[in-house]
Amino acid sequence: MKVLISKKTGNYYYYTQVSGDYHCKEGIIKEEDINSGISRALTHTNREFMIFEANGYDITKKYKRGPQLIMAKDLGYILSRSGIDKNSTIVEAGAGSGAATCFFAKFSKKVLSYEIREEHCKIVEKNIDITGVDNVELINKDLGEEIENIKEYDLLFLDMPEPHTILEKELSGLKHGNYVVCYVPSITQIQEITKTISQISTLYLEEISEVILRHWRVWEKVARPEHQKEVDHTAFLVFIRKV
Amino acid sequence: MKVLISKKTGNYYYYTQVSGDYHCKEGIIKEEDINSGISRALTHTNREFMIFEANGYDITKKYKRGPQLIMAKDLGYILSRSGIDKNSTIVEAGAGSGAATCFFAKFSKKVLSYEIREEHCKIVEKNIDITGVDNVELINKDLGEEIENIKEYDLLFLDMPEPHTILEKELSGLKHGNYVVCYVPSITQIQEITKTISQISTLYLEEISEVILRHWRVWEKVARPEHQKEVDHTAFLVFIRKV
Amino acid sequence: MKVLISKKTGNYYYYTQVSGDYHCKEGIIKEEDINSGISRALTHTNREFMIFEANGYDITKKYKRGPQLIMAKDLGYILSRSGIDKNSTIVEAGAGSGAATCFFAKFSKKVLSYEIREEHCKIVEKNIDITGVDNVELINKDLGEEIENIKEYDLLFLDMPEPHTILEKELSGLKHGNYVVCYVPSITQIQEITKTISQISTLYLEEISEVILRHWRVWEKVARPEHQKEVDHTAFLVFIRKV
Amino acid sequence: MKVLISKKTGNYYYYTQVSGDYHCKEGIIKEEDINSGISRALTHTNREFMIFEANGYDITKKYKRGPQLIMAKDLGYILSRSGIDKNSTIVEAGAGSGAATCFFAKFSKKVLSYEIREEHCKIVEKNIDITGVDNVELINKDLGEEIENIKEYDLLFLDMPEPHTILEKELSGLKHGNYVVCYVPSITQIQEITKTISQISTLYLEEISEVILRHWRVWEKVARPEHQKEVDHTAFLVFIRKV
Repeated sequence: MKVLISKKTGNYYYYTQVSGDYHCKEGIIKEEDINSGISRALTHTNREFMIFEANGYDITKKYKRGPQLIMAKDLGYILSRSGIDKNSTIVEAGAGSGAATCFFAKFSKKVLSYEIREEHCKIVEKNIDITGVDNVELINKDLGEEIENIKEYDLLFLDMPEPHTILEKELSGLKHGNYVVCYVPSITQIQEITKTISQISTLYLEEISEVILRHWRVWEKVARPEHQKEVDHTAFLVFIRKV
Repeated sequence: MKVLISKKTGNYYYYTQVSGDYHCKEGIIKEEDINSGISRALTHTNREFMIFEANGYDITKKYKRGPQLIMAKDLGYILSRSGIDKNSTIVEAGAGSGAATCFFAKFSKKVLSYEIREEHCKIVEKNIDITGVDNVELINKDLGEEIENIKEYDLLFLDMPEPHTILEKELSGLKHGNYVVCYVPSITQIQEITKTISQISTLYLEEISEVILRHWRVWEKVARPEHQKEVDHTAFLVFIRKV
Repeated sequence: MKVLISKKTGNYYYYTQVSGDYHCKEGIIKEEDINSGISRALTHTNREFMIFEANGYDITKKYKRGPQLIMAKDLGYILSRSGIDKNSTIVEAGAGSGAATCFFAKFSKKVLSYEIREEHCKIVEKNIDITGVDNVELINKDLGEEIENIKEYDLLFLDMPEPHTILEKELSGLKHGNYVVCYVPSITQIQEITKTISQISTLYLEEISEVILRHWRVWEKVARPEHQKEVDHTAFLVFIRKV
Repeated sequence: MKVLISKKTGNYYYYTQVSGDYHCKEGIIKEEDINSGISRALTHTNREFMIFEANGYDITKKYKRGPQLIMAKDLGYILSRSGIDKNSTIVEAGAGSGAATCFFAKFSKKVLSYEIREEHCKIVEKNIDITGVDNVELINKDLGEEIENIKEYDLLFLDMPEPHTILEKELSGLKHGNYVVCYVPSITQIQEITKTISQISTLYLEEISEVILRHWRVWEKVARPEHQKEVDHTAFLVFIRKV
C-alpha cells in the first residue's frame, strides 16, 4: 500500500491496488510513477503529489467499518497506563470493528477477543487480516458466559454498553494488581460501574480519565490550534484494579 | 514490589524492601500481612490499607529521577500514532531519565538510545534495570554525530532542546513513510522545526498534537472533574514523515 | 422578534417579519399562533414548535455578517476580567462586524469604535440598529492616527491583525492601572506584542488567556460532552496593563 | 487602593491602607513612593516594584472570603450568554460571598439577592461595600418562599446545592424567552435538573456548558501553556429558558 498526499489540498489517498494507474478527483497518477521509488509525482493535469510507503498507522485508515473505531489517542493511553507489555495476554469484549483488537495484537503476546455478533466478527477478521497479526483468538460468544473460566490474563478491556455486568463476575483469571479498563462514552455508565464496584471488595477504582487531543497548525506566520480538527468526545476510560 | 493504598487518604506507598515491616507516616504494616496473599491489612493504629501486586505502571513511579520523565499520556500517543509494533527498531535521543527508553523497550524489538551526558546515562541504566528489559542499547554519545550511520529503523524519537539540528542530517536509515517524532515543550521549538523542514524535500510535517488528560471523580452523589489533578502542559508532539 | 424551536430537530428559526405566516423547511406556522401568547404551535403538517420571545442573545444570531463575529465566550471574559463597569468608556478597533461594539455598548456608558473600512462600518451600523443601543460613536478612521488624542477611557480593545502598532503609540488617555486587551488568533501575534512591550516601560503584560467552551448533553440515560459542538479555537486574549 | 507587583517574583500585593509605608516579605516600600504618581519604586533592599492604580478586577481579589467565589471566566459567560444588559433586573440565590452579586450589580440596573444564612449576608454586605455598588437589595430569606411573588425580572441565577427545588416553583415573574442559569459543580445536579424540567412544560433546557480557561506564557524564547496555572474545574452552567 502507498499513501498519496496532494500538495495542493493536503488530502490523503491510499493506493491499495495490485497494479494500474490511480484515478482520484484530483487527477490521474501513473502506476510507474507510484512504484518508481521517487517520492513525488505529477498528475496528468500537473498537480503535485507526494508518495509515501504506508506505515502501520496508515493501515488503520483502511479498516473495514462497522461499529465506531476506537481512536489512537485512547488506545495509546490504555496501553501506557495499564502496565502491560509485549509479553502480556489481553482479554477484550466486544471486539466491535477490531481497532483495539488489532492494536493490542501489535504490542502484546496474545489477544483473546470476544464478540457476540457474528457480522461484527467478520469485520474484525477482515481488519486482523489487513493489520497482518496472527496472535488474536476471536471468539463469537458472550464474554459474560466465559469470563469466569479464562485463566491468567494481564488486562481485561471492556468496550460494551454495560461493562458493570462483567464486573459482577468472578474475575479470578486477572492477575492481582492488574486492570480492568472500561471504555464508556457516558458518565451514566461510570455511575453504574461505581455502584457495582462499591459492592465488590476485590475491585478498586483507581482512575477515571479522558484523553483530549488538540491539533496545532504552526507554519510561517501562523501558530494556532487547527480549525475543525478538534477531536470530538469519544469516551471516558475507567481503570479498575484487581485487589 | 507491592503497592499499599491507604483507605483513608488514598495515598500510595511502594513496598520495595526485601523484608521487614513497612513504616510510613500513616502507621506500621507487618511484613507477614504484606506477604500473606490477603489484600487488606491494618496498621498498628488500625488504619486500613489495600495491598496490591505492583504492575508495570507502578514500577514507573519508582524510577530514579533526573530530567523530567515523559508521561504516560504522551508515550501512549507516540506509540499508537507512529505506526510501529513489537517488531520495530526505535532510535531515540536524549534518553534523559529513560522513561521513553523503557516504555519503548517494553513494546518494541530494539531501542537504540543516545544520551550525551554521562550522569543521565547512569540514571537510565538504573531505570532499565527497574523495568527489567534487555533490548536497549544505551550509547553515551551525541546522536548528531552518529545518526547518518544508523541503518534500518522504524521510528526516530527526539526529546532534546534543538531537534531541528538532527532534522538537518541525512536520515537515510529511517524507513520510507515512517516518522520522526519530536517532543517539544514550546511553540517556539516547533517554529524552528517548521523553518528547517521547509528547506528539506524529504521531510513532511504531518501532525502537531497536544495530548491533554482530564481526571474525573464519579462516586455516589458526585460526578465532576477532579480538583487539583489536571495534568499540566508537558509538551507538543510533532510527527514528521520521511518521504 | 420571536424564536421558533422545532421539537423534532431542535433547530432554531427566527421570526423577524412584521406579519404573515412563517414558512420554513419544517412546515408553515400560522401568524395567529405565533402572536397568540401561547408557547407551542403545530405546523400544517402537525410538527410541534416552541415559541419564545427573542432575548438579547437571540438578537446576536440575526446580526448582519461581515468579518467573523467575536463569540460570547470571549466577550464575556473580556468584560469580567478587565475591571470595567456600566460607567466605563471603551475604545475599540477595528469594529469588524460590530459584535464586540454592540456587546460593550450594552454594558458600558460609551463605546468609541474605530473601523477603517467603510463597508464594515455599514455592517456595524446595521447591527447597532438591531441591538438597539445608542451609546456608540462609530468612526470610519484609522485608530492609529487618533489614539494619542483620545482622552479618559477605561478599556482599549484591539481586534486587528497588528495590534502592536497601536501599543507603540502614546496611550495617555487610558487610565492608570487599566487594560489594553488584544484579541489575536495566532501565537505569532502574541510574540509581536511581547517584543513590542518589552521596549515600553509603561505597559505590563499581565495575562495571556484562552477561553474554551465545552457543551454537554445530559438527558435521561446520557451524560457526555456534545458531539460536533465543541467550539473551534477563536483567539487568544492578551491583557496588557497601563503602568 | 494600589497594586504593587514585584518585578522579581511577579507577586501581587494590595495597598489598602489609608497611610504609612507598606511592609511585605519582599521588603518595605515607602508611602511617599506609592503615592508619588510614579509607577516604579524600590524597596529598602533595592527590589523593584511596579505600582498600579487598582482597577475593578483587582478589587475582587480583596473580597472578604466565605463560600467559594465564582470566577471571572464563569461570570463573564453568564452575562454574555444570558441576553441581559444594563437595564436588566437580576434575581439570584444564594448570594454566597457575593462575587456574582457584585458582578451583576456592576452591569445591570438592579440585583435582588437572596441568602438564607445570616453570616453569609454579612460577607456579601462587606463585598458590596468594597465594590461600591448601590443597586443590590440583599434579602436574608429563602428564595424558595419568595420566588413566586417576585415580579418582572430578566435573569434568575441559582448558585445553590439543589436548584431544581426552585425550578419546581411558578416562575411567573421571569420574562418570556429569558433564562434561569444554574451554576452546579457536579453532573449529578444537572441530572436532577433535567429530571425536574422534563415534567415542566414552561421550561426548556437550552444549553449546558463548561467554561475552561487556559493561561499562556509567551516571552522571548518561550511560548507554551503556563505551568501550575490551569484553572481547576469550577462548575457547569445550565441555561434554562422560560417558554
